[in-house]
Amino acid sequence: MPASADAVILPVFKAPGTRQAMISIQRFEERDWPATWKILEPVFRAGETYPCSTAISEEEAYYYWIEQPSATYIATDNDIHVEGSYYIKPNQPGLGGHVCNCGYVVGENARGRGIASEMCIHSQHEAVAQGFRAMQYNLVVSTNESAVHLWNKQGFDIIGTLPGAFQHRRLGFVDAHVMYKQLVTP
Amino acid sequence: MPASADAVILPVFKAPGTRQAMISIQRFEERDWPATWKILEPVFRAGETYPCSTAISEEEAYYYWIEQPSATYIATDNDIHVEGSYYIKPNQPGLGGHVCNCGYVVGENARGRGIASEMCIHSQHEAVAQGFRAMQYNLVVSTNESAVHLWNKQGFDIIGTLPGAFQHRRLGFVDAHVMYKQLVTP
Repeated sequence: MPASADAVILPVFKAPGTRQAMISIQRFEERDWPATWKILEPVFRAGETYPCSTAISEEEAYYYWIEQPSATYIATDNDIHVEGSYYIKPNQPGLGGHVCNCGYVVGENARGRGIASEMCIHSQHEAVAQGFRAMQYNLVVSTNESAVHLWNKQGFDIIGTLPGAFQHRRLGFVDAHVMYKQLVTP
Repeated sequence: MPASADAVILPVFKAPGTRQAMISIQRFEERDWPATWKILEPVFRAGETYPCSTAISEEEAYYYWIEQPSATYIATDNDIHVEGSYYIKPNQPGLGGHVCNCGYVVGENARGRGIASEMCIHSQHEAVAQGFRAMQYNLVVSTNESAVHLWNKQGFDIIGTLPGAFQHRRLGFVDAHVMYKQLVTP
């Protein structure tokens, strides 16, 4: 898949012991949907990290990930395989619209290679470019420790913890964190 | 306006020094919109408590307050005047759908009479009846001290505070609280 005109080639992230990959991140285009859905579906079906129903249909997922957000991006490996995707949207209307919300998914076979970090960094640049002043994650599942750790490393604070706010498919009701980062100096 | 079949007459709340009113709370019906919009509009235009744009149109407000929520209610004074309104909806889809979100507005001329408290109590009963397990307020403007105090009295905790998350029309960027209450014993 060729990079589109607004593709941004980010510095390669190479964690010790993981193979190097040239990840490029670009705007989602319609033709990317089948490959994007292929990585989203198992994550949504698992019911461990995203609040959408585990029975979500492809059409509902398309609305949730592509239509509703203001923009969606894909991360590709050497410009070939879709390995990750994220969306960005205002978290609230009007007077709360300067705070954005993002969601990130990395394909099951592409984990541990820093792709989520790359997408998080990319999303922060995009957010500022689009005029957002802060980024908020509304429901970071407390048992998803690698995500909590990753967002922490990216400068997001746990603003608070919502008791039992996520119905984990295996674990039942578990806590979820609200995480937040100011992107622009107040 | 006659009370509809599912109206619930709540115990009268009488604060010292305020006049007694018989407040009844019932499901919104289409004919209630003009009177409801009359109390919503000045609150939205003021830009001090609700995140919607201060330039919100009546159609957008109808979508926000009536169409998008799962249910909307009105509080009437002696079954005549609409003095307050609130909505209830799931705060997240699917696996976060057991937590509801509500928004409350009291008409400018009806404040200080306990109508917000009555609606808050009513909404908690409705929430449990509709199968919700918790209630979350996503953006309680920190400068709206009477609201923070009222929700606190109703058993809502400040889960965390989002720096600069609300663009107050007069004060600029101010903090907002996430408030939460579990309605069902875990």
